[in-house]
Amino acid sequence: MTSADVEAAIAATRSDVARLHGELVRYGLVVWTGGNVSGRVPGADLFVIKPSGVSYDDLTAENMILCDLDGTVVPGSPGSERSPSSDTAAHAYVYRNMPEVGGVVHTHSTYAVAWAARGEEIPCVITGMADEFGGPIPIGPFAVIGDDSIGQGIVQTLRGHRSRAVLMQNHGPFTIGASANDAVKAAVMCEDAARSVHIAREAGPLIPIPQEKIDALYNRYQNVYGQSGDVRR
Amino acid sequence: MTSADVEAAIAATRSDVARLHGELVRYGLVVWTGGNVSGRVPGADLFVIKPSGVSYDDLTAENMILCDLDGTVVPGSPGSERSPSSDTAAHAYVYRNMPEVGGVVHTHSTYAVAWAARGEEIPCVITGMADEFGGPIPIGPFAVIGDDSIGQGIVQTLRGHRSRAVLMQNHGPFTIGASANDAVKAAVMCEDAARSVHIAREAGPLIPIPQEKIDALYNRYQNVYGQSGDVRR
Amino acid sequence: MTSADVEAAIAATRSDVARLHGELVRYGLVVWTGGNVSGRVPGADLFVIKPSGVSYDDLTAENMILCDLDGTVVPGSPGSERSPSSDTAAHAYVYRNMPEVGGVVHTHSTYAVAWAARGEEIPCVITGMADEFGGPIPIGPFAVIGDDSIGQGIVQTLRGHRSRAVLMQNHGPFTIGASANDAVKAAVMCEDAARSVHIAREAGPLIPIPQEKIDALYNRYQNVYGQSGDVRR
Amino acid sequence: MTSADVEAAIAATRSDVARLHGELVRYGLVVWTGGNVSGRVPGADLFVIKPSGVSYDDLTAENMILCDLDGTVVPGSPGSERSPSSDTAAHAYVYRNMPEVGGVVHTHSTYAVAWAARGEEIPCVITGMADEFGGPIPIGPFAVIGDDSIGQGIVQTLRGHRSRAVLMQNHGPFTIGASANDAVKAAVMCEDAARSVHIAREAGPLIPIPQEKIDALYNRYQNVYGQSGDVRR
Repeated sequence: MTSADVEAAIAATRSDVARLHGELVRYGLVVWTGGNVSGRVPGADLFVIKPSGVSYDDLTAENMILCDLDGTVVPGSPGSERSPSSDTAAHAYVYRNMPEVGGVVHTHSTYAVAWAARGEEIPCVITGMADEFGGPIPIGPFAVIGDDSIGQGIVQTLRGHRSRAVLMQNHGPFTIGASANDAVKAAVMCEDAARSVHIAREAGPLIPIPQEKIDALYNRYQNVYGQSGDVRR
Repeated sequence: MTSADVEAAIAATRSDVARLHGELVRYGLVVWTGGNVSGRVPGADLFVIKPSGVSYDDLTAENMILCDLDGTVVPGSPGSERSPSSDTAAHAYVYRNMPEVGGVVHTHSTYAVAWAARGEEIPCVITGMADEFGGPIPIGPFAVIGDDSIGQGIVQTLRGHRSRAVLMQNHGPFTIGASANDAVKAAVMCEDAARSVHIAREAGPLIPIPQEKIDALYNRYQNVYGQSGDVRR
Repeated sequence: MTSADVEAAIAATRSDVARLHGELVRYGLVVWTGGNVSGRVPGADLFVIKPSGVSYDDLTAENMILCDLDGTVVPGSPGSERSPSSDTAAHAYVYRNMPEVGGVVHTHSTYAVAWAARGEEIPCVITGMADEFGGPIPIGPFAVIGDDSIGQGIVQTLRGHRSRAVLMQNHGPFTIGASANDAVKAAVMCEDAARSVHIAREAGPLIPIPQEKIDALYNRYQNVYGQSGDVRR
Repeated sequence: MTSADVEAAIAATRSDVARLHGELVRYGLVVWTGGNVSGRVPGADLFVIKPSGVSYDDLTAENMILCDLDGTVVPGSPGSERSPSSDTAAHAYVYRNMPEVGGVVHTHSTYAVAWAARGEEIPCVITGMADEFGGPIPIGPFAVIGDDSIGQGIVQTLRGHRSRAVLMQNHGPFTIGASANDAVKAAVMCEDAARSVHIAREAGPLIPIPQEKIDALYNRYQNVYGQSGDVRR
């Protein structure tokens, strides 16, 4: 890539990441300044993430923060006078260790947090969950913010797993995707599954879906849903 | 009908179906690109349905997709370059087998999905449900997407039934109506009933409504509610 | 009152009643075309109510319907070509039998309906409920729409009761007030109490509030809350 | 401070307090005219609070009410023709007794009220709660409005406590902060914690967070979250 290509890719990623934060608000996944979206800059060892502690009303492409894959802010880049999200180290760890990942999202969405506080995976009892996650949504380890332990927990849990969502114990969901948009979709669908299955189970026993039906649903959805020109995931 | 009449009917149906998707959003019945509304073109063996995997923000009369009653996209019609909803086969099956149906809706609305995950019909313990559905909202069979089994399950369950809503086991609600508007109303009222009865039962035993009272409520509502010029349902 | 005074009072009531329906939407108390607000015309044996089966988006002062206290539409008045709310007879009964009532509201709000489906009054365990309702919110009898039985049930339950809300068994809440605005406030606060107390009790035993404290809260709120120029209630 | 400085500080506080009421609406913490925010005027023995019984739609900087630290309205100040919030005495008590407090918020938010109706503190089982409150959210005593007993209950419970939120028994949450903005944040996060922990516990046993992890989370969040120029809290 030329330098101009990289600049264009950075600008496009800034714009996407800023806009996608609005989807977290729209679906009620975040309150106040909590939650964050990041997106890898295609073709470069960089990603773009939300600044720390800034209101969702005030997020723009210009105040998104550009980081390298160690999570260090790129000096002199727009927004670099601010601190990036306090979850930046976790995002960076995922980008370094999962090259197929193009986007990462973290929220404290209510029902996903509730499963996380019990350390209980969400069983796959609805077809929409089989489509999207191909089975249960797993629990990751308890990990305190501030070093690589959250990132390690995400990667250890999701590497090789069908699910793009992990519920970090006592904390909340992290989701990954081929793009930032896809990771945001996973965050939305994770909360939807967490809520539906919670409410279903409040009222009595759930009917399991046979594994071969889960497999069939997952395989179809990964291959035939959406428009033929869509980037898968 | 003349060809111009058919064109006008198609145009009106496209416009209705596009607009009615906004009601699914307004009432919180859908997230991301999930859910779909279709409407039969009056006087023609055609129906109009949502494209697959397109954002609710981007739906317009022009990008709705026109299909014949086998669920095949009409070649060369506006929107025909896109894939229709992945539930198109189920909608088509209903239109072929229930000529009185003018609209079909599918969502994964939270509380209806919860009853579906337990395979439990919603008992008719509130007068608003008696008005609208004339009794319990039934469960349909478990069926995997991709052939006629969902359509068959809908038709077998709802043919001759007062309810315009069926909860497909482990999946979610499908609703039918005399028009697309009526099917959307049924989807809204189905989730409302699913939520109210779920919450009621969480806290203790429900008082049944005697069958003759359910019958009286249903018969009155079908005949005297609304404005005299309204199409019934 | 002169005829011009009556006309002005009708116009003001039409405007208030149309506008107040928007509060039912704002607080999520209604779906589709369900629910209704009415207001007595001050100084006349008339009230204004919503038309039946019309969307909340389309309600205006002009299409509100003017009725006498028997619930008969005033011939030739604006909107009189339409049918009034199917609950008009119940509203009329209340106005005929409770001259102190200036407004009536009916909804199928979720949590209030849930208590109604169990036939269980809402206990007064939160101070906001003591302020507003002065004790529990009572249950009214099961009554089928179409004659005076709903109206009778409301009046028998609320006459002489501190509560301005009654939960009609298996049906939902009706609220009354000194004005339409006050009855709408009671509908909003009734659902708020129904929801808070339901959720509180899901998780364990509630602490009762001693009766003399309930009395003190109620008496203070009726006398000192709000601005000194406010119409009480 | 010069008189002009005080006037400027009053004007800025009026504007902040009026605007911050909108956050209570945005996060669904209040209905009708319930709830209130106040803010201390920096450098003066004064605070600004909401008028009693006025719609959230109608709140402006001009109709906020200026009080001294006894809760007496400053004669002749803008808005002084109206009554201040009926909770003014409680706010004043807090300002007199906790000089570090710059803002106070009171709501009847649903889940916080539910814990209050059981008199049960919210256990700290999610990391977001450890960050924000440093442990459980405590219960304050039952206290009737109208004298200093609510204010005393708030101060006795929160003085020396990490939590900026107290759930007054059978009543609801009061929150404090270094500024009105910080107290509003605490009210938002308090309801979020109350809801998430309630829902978590409905479905089974919660995993406790070890005390030293809670301490580490709290200490980090108080010191490194947000932008370096932010006022702490």
